[in-house]
Amino acid sequence: MALKKKPVTGMRDILPGEMQVREYVMNQIRETYRGFGFTQIETPCVEHIENLTSKQGGDNEKLIFKILKRGEKLSLESAKEEKDLVDGGLRYDLTLPLARYYSNNSAQLPSPFKALQMGSVWRADRPQKGRFRQFTQCDIDILGDASSMAEIELILATTTVLGKICPENGFTVRINDREILKGMALYCRFDESSLDQVFITLDKMDKIGMEGVEAELLEAGHARDSVAQYTKLLAEVGHDADGVRKLGTVLEKVLPLSVTENLAHIMQTVANVAETEFSLYFDPTLVRGMSYYTGTIFEVSMEGFGGSVAGGGRYDKMIGKFTGKDAPACGFSIGFERIITILMDQGGKVPGATERKAYLVEKGVDSTRFAQIMRQAMEERKKGAQVLVSQMNKNKKFQKEQLEKEGYTEFVEFYREGLKE
Amino acid sequence: MALKKKPVTGMRDILPGEMQVREYVMNQIRETYRGFGFTQIETPCVEHIENLTSKQGGDNEKLIFKILKRGEKLSLESAKEEKDLVDGGLRYDLTLPLARYYSNNSAQLPSPFKALQMGSVWRADRPQKGRFRQFTQCDIDILGDASSMAEIELILATTTVLGKICPENGFTVRINDREILKGMALYCRFDESSLDQVFITLDKMDKIGMEGVEAELLEAGHARDSVAQYTKLLAEVGHDADGVRKLGTVLEKVLPLSVTENLAHIMQTVANVAETEFSLYFDPTLVRGMSYYTGTIFEVSMEGFGGSVAGGGRYDKMIGKFTGKDAPACGFSIGFERIITILMDQGGKVPGATERKAYLVEKGVDSTRFAQIMRQAMEERKKGAQVLVSQMNKNKKFQKEQLEKEGYTEFVEFYREGLKE
Repeated sequence: MALKKKPVTGMRDILPGEMQVREYVMNQIRETYRGFGFTQIETPCVEHIENLTSKQGGDNEKLIFKILKRGEKLSLESAKEEKDLVDGGLRYDLTLPLARYYSNNSAQLPSPFKALQMGSVWRADRPQKGRFRQFTQCDIDILGDASSMAEIELILATTTVLGKICPENGFTVRINDREILKGMALYCRFDESSLDQVFITLDKMDKIGMEGVEAELLEAGHARDSVAQYTKLLAEVGHDADGVRKLGTVLEKVLPLSVTENLAHIMQTVANVAETEFSLYFDPTLVRGMSYYTGTIFEVSMEGFGGSVAGGGRYDKMIGKFTGKDAPACGFSIGFERIITILMDQGGKVPGATERKAYLVEKGVDSTRFAQIMRQAMEERKKGAQVLVSQMNKNKKFQKEQLEKEGYTEFVEFYREGLKE
Repeated sequence: MALKKKPVTGMRDILPGEMQVREYVMNQIRETYRGFGFTQIETPCVEHIENLTSKQGGDNEKLIFKILKRGEKLSLESAKEEKDLVDGGLRYDLTLPLARYYSNNSAQLPSPFKALQMGSVWRADRPQKGRFRQFTQCDIDILGDASSMAEIELILATTTVLGKICPENGFTVRINDREILKGMALYCRFDESSLDQVFITLDKMDKIGMEGVEAELLEAGHARDSVAQYTKLLAEVGHDADGVRKLGTVLEKVLPLSVTENLAHIMQTVANVAETEFSLYFDPTLVRGMSYYTGTIFEVSMEGFGGSVAGGGRYDKMIGKFTGKDAPACGFSIGFERIITILMDQGGKVPGATERKAYLVEKGVDSTRFAQIMRQAMEERKKGAQVLVSQMNKNKKFQKEQLEKEGYTEFVEFYREGLKE
């Protein structure tokens, strides 16, 4: 019986053309982030099932690829539930493994620790266009820094790299703080126990607009006064640092001024320092899905492309789940696969790619001549050229066409009698 | 209950120091192989369980991390055997997935196709020192080239990269051909059905020496004459291209001369062309474990380090398992983790690493001053420097010591009043 040629459901083979773009982007990311003092680390792709299912992953916990116990630990007969069969799973993000990594290795790491991770994650999502079950994530995180320096560095680093990778695409950074989100709702006297529900509705602003949000809140039974005050507050708030400070004075009774002052400071410093052009604004409707965020949250969108191309925030309570003692943490994740899709849609050209040369060698060239050809190739390679040495196929025209698709621009043909160009 | 801080059994967290060495080696590999016309590709980490258990993986098939079926496909109650629960597994090497990839995508790939893969593989081995359940493999393969040009290019590329990564360590390439291996045994009239057993014994030469091999063959019941003739032949054979040609004339009745001529040609061309220094010799006792090899096989060892640092060979029958039609294939794999261990043992220094600078900023620096500091950092980064901006810790001495371990050589301290160095 023939073996299966297609990749497993929802995963894919990456062809050379796309791989070149991916490598280019990864190099840009690595170099830029290194300049900001981030150091690359790696965690295993397999995590303890206990960690993966500890409610740090939200809905992703429903999408874990679970790994069968091995050897003596696997007893199929006595297994009653799934957990009798499983002790590990493939990581669904890089944040939870990072929190474990930091908890395990912090004695050997500087403080604060600036980590860069690029790696595959897996989610058993229903396969659909542009959504795969294995994909690359690219995260930077600053651990052990409670100050807003972390947010400022993360935003500067991420916007710098986005400006390098997609120099043609304008982008926008929206920023909020989970405390402000909560303060605004409390100020409007929403019931504290219903806040999560309020934010789930608010998060739909993109899709259903302010009127839709208002209608959904009323339908859910929230007080008419609260909803009216909330929509008014959202409509009137300013989106720059001054707007944030003014909002702070409005919310003073339910929220310490330091929270809005902190966000205004982040916004002002970033605007003052950034060398890449982008718009930065306070978005009081920004929620971000994950429940682990505790403070600042941010999201980047790119002109002409729906959805976000990067996002992140502060999550000061996750490391404590491992160590019993909370440690400040803040991260920014680039939507690597989205960026690749955008670049591939724009033609998938990689700036500064070396020219490629192909030596096509006729079959039957004698040993001495062949050694000469190979030496010539080695010389060119030493000087930095990319030289493919290949047998000349019977259908030379087709062979060249295929190689041209791979970016080969120069062909040198070697025949039995000698060089013929 | 606190979450688990340690990585899963047999896998490990990679710390920044080692990660720097890994990235350096990967870059050397990528750049060098690109010069030889190899293009990077990627396959999913998860493979069909049918492919993984198709006897292309030898003993590795016993070590598969198996993945539980998802959703409706998983029915725990009616499951009778493991295969009712499992439909995928983590790849244990990069060769089988490459054969699947080539079978699936060959219409979009040039011919011959020169592939470079770097990626994680998983084996549920018994954990032991220096042996991990997740590790990186680094393979180059040439698909669609039946000629010895493939072997020559693979050996030249691999030795070039090894010479760059480990310039201080001399190394040796041993080469053989599965057909010659077979021819020698048949010439000595070993029973054709017992050849695999003969080679398993021969493969122990490193450990038990010629006498040990002789004793084990006799003990296994092979004819005394055969064993005597075999040990004599092995002892007398020459190890250069001439030796291979002479062996060819001896084996003429059981082996076509073209096989030994082919090997001699590979050896001569490599010796003529290579720019890296290494010894290359014909080793008639080289077996290599995997059953999929069909022709040339090779292995590289490094002075002062037991075991091999690279190995590979020709496997012309694997792609046919997917497509029904055989296609020539030849590959060379670098023992990536072994190379990293060697480099870490030698101090883990990375040539040409950029100097790192740390800005330590006292708490409470005002916004204007802070923006100035950040602008200065951005300026330096733009010029290619690596600049970490960090809050100054209370224990500044310890903070600096930690940063020095990470390679920071220059410190600039910023205080509330102004700059103090």
